[in-house]
Amino acid sequence: MKADHMVQRIWWEREDLSYRNGRLLFGNRDLLKFVQSAGTPVYVYNSARIQDNLTRLAVNLKEAGVRFKIFYALKANRYLPLVTFLKLLGRCGADVCSPAELVLARQIGFREKEITYTGTSVANEDLDCLQRHPGVQVNCDAISTIRRLGERCPGRTIGIRINPRLGAGYNEILRYAGEKTTKFGIYQERFQEALDLAHTYNLQVKTLHFHIGSGYLTPEIPILDDILKRCHWFLDRCSDIDTLDIGGGLGVPLVEGQKPLDLGRWARTIAAHAREKDLVIHLEPGDYLVKDAGVLIVQVNTVEEKGDTKFVGVNGGFNIHSAAAYYDVPFIVAPLTGNPSAVHQKKTVAGNINEAIDLLAEDVLLPPIQEGDYLALLNAGGYGSASSSNHCMRGKFLEYLIVD
Amino acid sequence: MKADHMVQRIWWEREDLSYRNGRLLFGNRDLLKFVQSAGTPVYVYNSARIQDNLTRLAVNLKEAGVRFKIFYALKANRYLPLVTFLKLLGRCGADVCSPAELVLARQIGFREKEITYTGTSVANEDLDCLQRHPGVQVNCDAISTIRRLGERCPGRTIGIRINPRLGAGYNEILRYAGEKTTKFGIYQERFQEALDLAHTYNLQVKTLHFHIGSGYLTPEIPILDDILKRCHWFLDRCSDIDTLDIGGGLGVPLVEGQKPLDLGRWARTIAAHAREKDLVIHLEPGDYLVKDAGVLIVQVNTVEEKGDTKFVGVNGGFNIHSAAAYYDVPFIVAPLTGNPSAVHQKKTVAGNINEAIDLLAEDVLLPPIQEGDYLALLNAGGYGSASSSNHCMRGKFLEYLIVD
Repeated sequence: MKADHMVQRIWWEREDLSYRNGRLLFGNRDLLKFVQSAGTPVYVYNSARIQDNLTRLAVNLKEAGVRFKIFYALKANRYLPLVTFLKLLGRCGADVCSPAELVLARQIGFREKEITYTGTSVANEDLDCLQRHPGVQVNCDAISTIRRLGERCPGRTIGIRINPRLGAGYNEILRYAGEKTTKFGIYQERFQEALDLAHTYNLQVKTLHFHIGSGYLTPEIPILDDILKRCHWFLDRCSDIDTLDIGGGLGVPLVEGQKPLDLGRWARTIAAHAREKDLVIHLEPGDYLVKDAGVLIVQVNTVEEKGDTKFVGVNGGFNIHSAAAYYDVPFIVAPLTGNPSAVHQKKTVAGNINEAIDLLAEDVLLPPIQEGDYLALLNAGGYGSASSSNHCMRGKFLEYLIVD
Repeated sequence: MKADHMVQRIWWEREDLSYRNGRLLFGNRDLLKFVQSAGTPVYVYNSARIQDNLTRLAVNLKEAGVRFKIFYALKANRYLPLVTFLKLLGRCGADVCSPAELVLARQIGFREKEITYTGTSVANEDLDCLQRHPGVQVNCDAISTIRRLGERCPGRTIGIRINPRLGAGYNEILRYAGEKTTKFGIYQERFQEALDLAHTYNLQVKTLHFHIGSGYLTPEIPILDDILKRCHWFLDRCSDIDTLDIGGGLGVPLVEGQKPLDLGRWARTIAAHAREKDLVIHLEPGDYLVKDAGVLIVQVNTVEEKGDTKFVGVNGGFNIHSAAAYYDVPFIVAPLTGNPSAVHQKKTVAGNINEAIDLLAEDVLLPPIQEGDYLALLNAGGYGSASSSNHCMRGKFLEYLIVD
């Protein structure tokens, strides 16, 4: 029986997310039963999986001998029960990127010292907010920010975000540094100018910050290593720095054949540099903590062949989750009721927004689907609800946190 | 003096949008003075321009001898004062694509017969809503929709949206029919099946509907003509059809050198087919009515060279208007105070969202810009506020309608 079960297992199934007797279970909930009361479109987040993701990071860093602090990047998902759960776990702070996010982090209960602020195109109003929160750790991503923060808060401890001219992510859209100049951070040739300016205002530069991109996996660890090497040049120019903030960007497998990020190797890579330079490591994971801990469930309303394509029309669109349509980051499509032995065919899942690009999944292998069926879109826990819109007034959905 | 003024005129200037004494005027408002009280980010819409755009369409269709009705596509901009203004003008109906939009149109005062419903991936709940609004003209874009609408509303008059396998728009993203199969409409090979099904439910097929894409200009008129020719095949198979709904998609010039759509030629192209087939023409312009009637004004907070790029950071991002970042449809960037004789340099306008693609304009020629300056993003009247999000909790903006 166990062997039989193992044979049929789909590559993405795991302890808290799998089919049992043809029904998709998530955090021990039968999702079909669940949506029959909750309705759709609906996001479901499994708090236990979020905790596992956080623990996995912490354990690996600890085992590698890294001194570290984790700050959850609030922008990935700010569903209040979810972020409150994270706060109450007591094992991470919050990374914010706007005054409203900063205030939200405080409202949830995060103390100022548990908050990092890593913004871009920072307005004076944003700096005024930071002035009112003197304990928040600010990472300045422009010389202009250093100047205007210095004018307001001379003597404050700051971080400087650099641009290492190298990045990695799920794809080109999601690389935040690289050959093409990006708006983020201070480049090498202006770093001394940044330090001098900080000095003018007596700002204490204690942290060096970079962000690699969104969605790197094991094959990209050498790029991370290369960026860490490039950090030495910056670190050697400012002996006050005792903290390296390596941002977020850790990815999860999106398609069959991809392996989960090798966190042991990842942590040892970081540890080598942290040891050499005697650094505390700050980490700002957002998507990594919530992405595979959330599913978006939609209902099929239209099954129809058009031209050469078998379309499965559903009651949610790319305005509710834009990863597939705008970022080319695919969802895994899992029917809530599945017959693994059924013949699979290539189908395209289309949303209900009047735009041609509103496709939630293209040419994915699916078993027979009927109108009225439900589909779970996996890896939907991050950058879904947080950046959803009411386009075509189709923005309604609910969110649920599974707690045991 | 007049000659001198003419020489300096920028290609996009027009009567209601131009510089006078170095200040950008819009609908006779000095925008600098305006934002000093209104704040930023702010959308400003000129009702007179919206009226002009609508009038221009109507005049040209009338001159070409076309019998027509115009339905404003609400999804482009549903700012209540704006749509109320359009309703009160009394010269168009409303095109909606979701139950919530339908209800909104009714709330504004549109009567059922003034509303067309052109949706996709239509759910049973959507059809239930249509059943409660028997006077609304439904365009069915799938055989499944015809079946489920027929079950609910036998005998109803309907339209059928077809997919002509041909499209045009600002770019590939915005073509809604073409070589690649799209989710919209019924293809030729299943049209008879659709008619037979409609017949089964005694549905009266009175309208043939297509949508070409978003943003076609004069060079694309032959494509429109080709699509209209393809419509004959469909029309010949259903003698009941007396109305051809040609959707929206009319474009405006985005960059220097582009000419406004030749509406005379456009209307004559339509007229030839309407005459031949004795058809009333329905039109669903959204963006065309509001796009160039709206500007988004943001304030510069960061002027900084990074790598090889001169960045101008502003207090709004692609979450407020996604045209440039997601659709590759550029804004025109117009500083509120301008010195036309100043040396222009290539600059990139970056938003305040922590994503690399959050650029509002790339490598556009701009005069010297200081922190604190304001920039108007032109052609921002459509698909801005209507599909904005609160990503990074940076979703705050105001909207103003200029009325004289």
